[in-house]
Amino acid sequence: MTQRAPASARTAGRPRSREADTAILTAALDLLIELGAAQTSIEQVARRAGVTRATVYRRFAGKTALLVEALEWANHDHDPGFTGWRDLGHMFADWAAHLAEPRNRRLLRRVNALVDDYPELIGTYRRLNGGRRAAVVRETLERAAGRGELPGGLDLGVVQEMLTGAVLNHLGSHPDDEGPDEIKAYFLAVVKQIGHRPAVTDGGGSI
Amino acid sequence: MTQRAPASARTAGRPRSREADTAILTAALDLLIELGAAQTSIEQVARRAGVTRATVYRRFAGKTALLVEALEWANHDHDPGFTGWRDLGHMFADWAAHLAEPRNRRLLRRVNALVDDYPELIGTYRRLNGGRRAAVVRETLERAAGRGELPGGLDLGVVQEMLTGAVLNHLGSHPDDEGPDEIKAYFLAVVKQIGHRPAVTDGGGSI
Repeated sequence: MTQRAPASARTAGRPRSREADTAILTAALDLLIELGAAQTSIEQVARRAGVTRATVYRRFAGKTALLVEALEWANHDHDPGFTGWRDLGHMFADWAAHLAEPRNRRLLRRVNALVDDYPELIGTYRRLNGGRRAAVVRETLERAAGRGELPGGLDLGVVQEMLTGAVLNHLGSHPDDEGPDEIKAYFLAVVKQIGHRPAVTDGGGSI
Repeated sequence: MTQRAPASARTAGRPRSREADTAILTAALDLLIELGAAQTSIEQVARRAGVTRATVYRRFAGKTALLVEALEWANHDHDPGFTGWRDLGHMFADWAAHLAEPRNRRLLRRVNALVDDYPELIGTYRRLNGGRRAAVVRETLERAAGRGELPGGLDLGVVQEMLTGAVLNHLGSHPDDEGPDEIKAYFLAVVKQIGHRPAVTDGGGSI
C-alpha cells in the first residue's frame, strides 16, 4: 500500500506541503483521543500543529472533514501485510496486543462515543475497519467451525456480534493497564462459553 | 421507596424549592442526553430550567455534581417494586422494553461515553445500576443454570460480561427503531450460542 496525500488535500489548487498535512492530521488525531470530537476545535489543531487556522481551512472543509481524514490517515498504514489470522487464538492475541495500548483504547472509546453527534465520523471508521476486518473475522470463525474448534449449530453472525460486544465491554469495564496475556485470556474465556475447544498445537497443548 | 430531595440540595441552608430542583435536574438530564456532558453547561441548564445561574450554583457545586445528581434522580423511582426476573426470557423482555426507547438508548450511550472525561459520573451510574442490578442478573443466570436451562460448566461471571457486551453492541450497532420483540430475540440468540434452552412454559412452548 503506497503512501498517499489526504484526499481533500489532493484537490487543493496549490503546491502540496506534506509536512503541514502530517502535522495537522497528527494534531487532530491526538486531540480527538485526548479531548473527544466535541471538545476539539480547528483553533486547537492549528496551534498544536504550528500552523495558522487559515492553513487548516485551506486543506480541510471543517472539523468533521478533518477528523474523518485523520481517522483515514491513522488507518492508512495499518497492517499493510495483513492476510488473516491462523485461528481464534492468533486473532485474539492480535486484538489483545492492540487493546493493551491505552492510546488505542482511548481512540476506540472516542470513536464509539461519536454515534449520536458525528455519524459521518463513525461511518468512516466503520467503513475502514468494519468492512475488510469484519470479513476476516467471519472467515476465521468459519475456519474454526470447519475444523471442529467451534461446535456445530452456532450462528456465526451472532457470535461475531458477541465478539464485538466483548471488545466494547473490555474497553468500558476493564482497566487500561491489563496486559496482552490477560486480555487474550479474556477473549478465550468468552469463546469457551460458546464451546470453543482450541486445537492442540505442536509442542504447545490446549489451554 | 419514598421521594427525597437531591442530596446536595438538602444541605443548603435555605428553604427548599422542590419545583426548582426538579426543573434543574430535568434540564440537566435532558441536556446530557441531547448534547453529552462536555457540551452541557450550567448556563444552558439554568436557561432551560427557567432559573438563574446563581440558583443552580446555590444548589449544586458545579456541572459534574449536578449531572451526578441528575443521574441519581433519574434512577430514583426506577422499578420501585422490582424483585427480580422469573427467567432469562423475562429478563430479556425487560431489557428489550428499556432498549426500545430511543431516549434510554441515548442516555446509556452518553453515560458510556463518560469513562475518560467524567469518571465520577460513570462511577455514580455504575454504583446505582451496577450493584443491585448486577447481583440480580447473576441470580437469574444461576437459577437458569440450576434448572438446566443453561448447560453445566459455564463461567457465569464471563457470561454476565458477555451480556453487558451484548447490550453495548446493540446500543452501538443496531438502529434505534428496533422494537422490543426484535431486541428480545437478539438477546435470546446470544444466549442460544452458549447453550441456553428455554423452559417450556404452560401453554406457550419453547422458541
